[in-house]
Amino acid sequence: MGELDAVLARIDAEAPAALDRLFHLLRIRSISADPAYAAECQACADWHAADLASIGFEAQARSTAGHPIVVGHHRAGAGPSALFYGHYDVQPVDPLDLWEHDPFEPRIETRADGTKVIRARGAADDKGQLMTFVEACRAWKAVTGSLPIPVTILLEGEEESGGANLPGFLAANADELRADIGLICDTNMWDARTPAITTMLRGLVGEEFIVTAADRDLHSGFYGMAAANPNAIVARILADLRDSEGRVTLPSFYDGVPELDPALRAQWEALPFDPAAFLGTVGLSVPAGEKGRSVLEMTWSRPTCEVNGMGGGYQGEGFKTVIPSKSSAKVSFRLVFDQDPHKVREAFRAFVRARVPADCKVEFLDHGAGRAIRFPIDAPAFRQARQALSDEWGREAFFIGGGGSIPVTHMLKTSLGMDVILAGFGLEDDRIHSPNEKYDLDCFLKGTRSWARVLHALAS
Amino acid sequence: MGELDAVLARIDAEAPAALDRLFHLLRIRSISADPAYAAECQACADWHAADLASIGFEAQARSTAGHPIVVGHHRAGAGPSALFYGHYDVQPVDPLDLWEHDPFEPRIETRADGTKVIRARGAADDKGQLMTFVEACRAWKAVTGSLPIPVTILLEGEEESGGANLPGFLAANADELRADIGLICDTNMWDARTPAITTMLRGLVGEEFIVTAADRDLHSGFYGMAAANPNAIVARILADLRDSEGRVTLPSFYDGVPELDPALRAQWEALPFDPAAFLGTVGLSVPAGEKGRSVLEMTWSRPTCEVNGMGGGYQGEGFKTVIPSKSSAKVSFRLVFDQDPHKVREAFRAFVRARVPADCKVEFLDHGAGRAIRFPIDAPAFRQARQALSDEWGREAFFIGGGGSIPVTHMLKTSLGMDVILAGFGLEDDRIHSPNEKYDLDCFLKGTRSWARVLHALAS
Repeated sequence: MGELDAVLARIDAEAPAALDRLFHLLRIRSISADPAYAAECQACADWHAADLASIGFEAQARSTAGHPIVVGHHRAGAGPSALFYGHYDVQPVDPLDLWEHDPFEPRIETRADGTKVIRARGAADDKGQLMTFVEACRAWKAVTGSLPIPVTILLEGEEESGGANLPGFLAANADELRADIGLICDTNMWDARTPAITTMLRGLVGEEFIVTAADRDLHSGFYGMAAANPNAIVARILADLRDSEGRVTLPSFYDGVPELDPALRAQWEALPFDPAAFLGTVGLSVPAGEKGRSVLEMTWSRPTCEVNGMGGGYQGEGFKTVIPSKSSAKVSFRLVFDQDPHKVREAFRAFVRARVPADCKVEFLDHGAGRAIRFPIDAPAFRQARQALSDEWGREAFFIGGGGSIPVTHMLKTSLGMDVILAGFGLEDDRIHSPNEKYDLDCFLKGTRSWARVLHALAS
Repeated sequence: MGELDAVLARIDAEAPAALDRLFHLLRIRSISADPAYAAECQACADWHAADLASIGFEAQARSTAGHPIVVGHHRAGAGPSALFYGHYDVQPVDPLDLWEHDPFEPRIETRADGTKVIRARGAADDKGQLMTFVEACRAWKAVTGSLPIPVTILLEGEEESGGANLPGFLAANADELRADIGLICDTNMWDARTPAITTMLRGLVGEEFIVTAADRDLHSGFYGMAAANPNAIVARILADLRDSEGRVTLPSFYDGVPELDPALRAQWEALPFDPAAFLGTVGLSVPAGEKGRSVLEMTWSRPTCEVNGMGGGYQGEGFKTVIPSKSSAKVSFRLVFDQDPHKVREAFRAFVRARVPADCKVEFLDHGAGRAIRFPIDAPAFRQARQALSDEWGREAFFIGGGGSIPVTHMLKTSLGMDVILAGFGLEDDRIHSPNEKYDLDCFLKGTRSWARVLHALAS
């Protein structure tokens, strides 16, 4: 039996222990967006540093102005070096009443067809995914005493809350962290049987704005129509952001957004993708975006504008005839190709300011920004990784576009000069960021085996 | 000393005891909109029934499908009979962090000019106001052993939460409750020195709608633009409700809304009212309503549309790239003249439905409805009451319009055939429905004296 086969066998034999470790990790409530959970974020980082050290990494949870960043080095090994990135923080869990169980008490559920899922907040995004790579390293070390290539593992704790401290950390530690290739496990497969490497990622701009009108809540019977209503102002701004064709109305928003290359368009059109089924799985049927664009274009290669949150006035039971003092909204833009996040942010703020009456105030909160990115799919590392995935899953892996944004990918490219292989084992129905998040048990086990193969392939 | 003078002297002497009673009442958390406070609403009704019985009223807290209604009769006395209406329930207190003290721990504060205010939720709306009438009755009974006219007191517990059970109660007990004149103390004076009787009141329609798109919260990176976003749908609907001239866009909304009678318009234009000062007290300066209308018109005689609450998606700290499953808004319309509340409600629902995509759902909650109303200001009771108020305050009382809605006023008119004298002692800066609600101590004491005079005047 060759080394790789021995490692794969070890992974299979170690699966129960690997699951125990993942469950321990999933019990830690590392919600980075909510300051109430700062201690749990620290505990999560500490756990990772100790776990990596136990495998033989030189690992530490390093302090930042926010949550810690875990860095572990395994410098031995020949061939090109790799930097693996994951994030140990998770999304908030509200609305809690839609969860069928405690989001931080993971459990295995068996579906009607006999397949199993791991259900918990973070099961897929990103604790389950990042542990596929850690477990692959553990197996290589156990079997061979080393890794096929030098590996650094970096685990962030603020991916779900703006990631304000990562850029500075990467810049300050560039020489230590730079590697020949980046590896990230935070994306989806094409479907449950077909692996994929995401080679196009959209960028992101996150903005929040808060409109203040009167200096107190007012009775709508006394002040109605006479006093500015911040709910109406916010609603008007949000409505104005899209035109009747579904296009975003910010001036210059589409600068740097070319039509899709005809060859890539043809490849996407040939993909076995059913838009009706895609929307049907969440109870919808009418594509809501730009008229005349396919759903794959909307979610992979076109920019978006979404209202992720809004609120003002009385939202409790019953009714209260109030004109609130404040109202606010959280808006995100997904960016593609050469859109400049900073120009989009400035255009948005100007757009909002122009719609706030002279006697009202508006303030803005910056919730992060990152450019869109594309990788060279014909470079050797991409070909090697694709073959490794195809070998594990018995189907040719696809090169696909990605709708979500992983800002670190752009940072690795621009700050450290690295290309990144985005190979993840998530599935469309994982409900990440939603109640009842899950990760398929098969994805966890075959994902671990996939990384063992990728490490082997990159060394050749 | 005549009877009236003796009663007024008694009120002055009894002021500390009257305040004790009011403070006890203000400590009861009778928030009718929130089911968590149902027991406190019951306790509040029971307290009133016992208090009225102690004065000599035949009084009970009567059950309804919601919170109880207190009815007390004092059948002795000559002259025309009166039905006094007040409400013992109060508005919710959120946002609680804007209160400078516990809203249910009343206290007296002394202002820089030496005047005093009673600060608590319900101090003005309506516990302080309704107790001015109860204390006037108590003083008449103490001094003369009776009241100048037969009086029935009716205290509702659902005025701040739609008042669903009052119409049926009035209809079922019409013969018991009918009187020659209605009296309500839930309105404002013209200013702190000038009493007023409100003879025009706007009506109200309260509506809530909830838009559901996908059957779960979605990740905006995967589904953005492709899946309908209920926040965007709600924002579009709310924005569409007003045009660029500030007019409400519901079809037929302005049916039954005439231009103001020129004589009344001239009287209003002569009132000592400064729109800049009115808005300036709450930190605003730009009238936000219909272009070409005065602020007094906007708040007294024109219909309105206000977004009292809206919310959907992630509203916590930080950012969450979610497309929520649901988003909702609470909208109220103030009605004038002959606008039909039921037609307005139906027009609103049709307007909303027309803007909800085919694959999304919308549901509506009815939060009450009442027509606008006007009273005959030259009838004897109105002239007598006006004179009584003018005597107490040393200034001629004004007949004014009112921006708020008191649906019971219309019910008394249509169900029981009664005109209503709306004489209240609230002030514009009372912050009712807002944090730090207050009632001027002078308004409470002179309000009590005012009702003692009105009861006397109506008997003559």
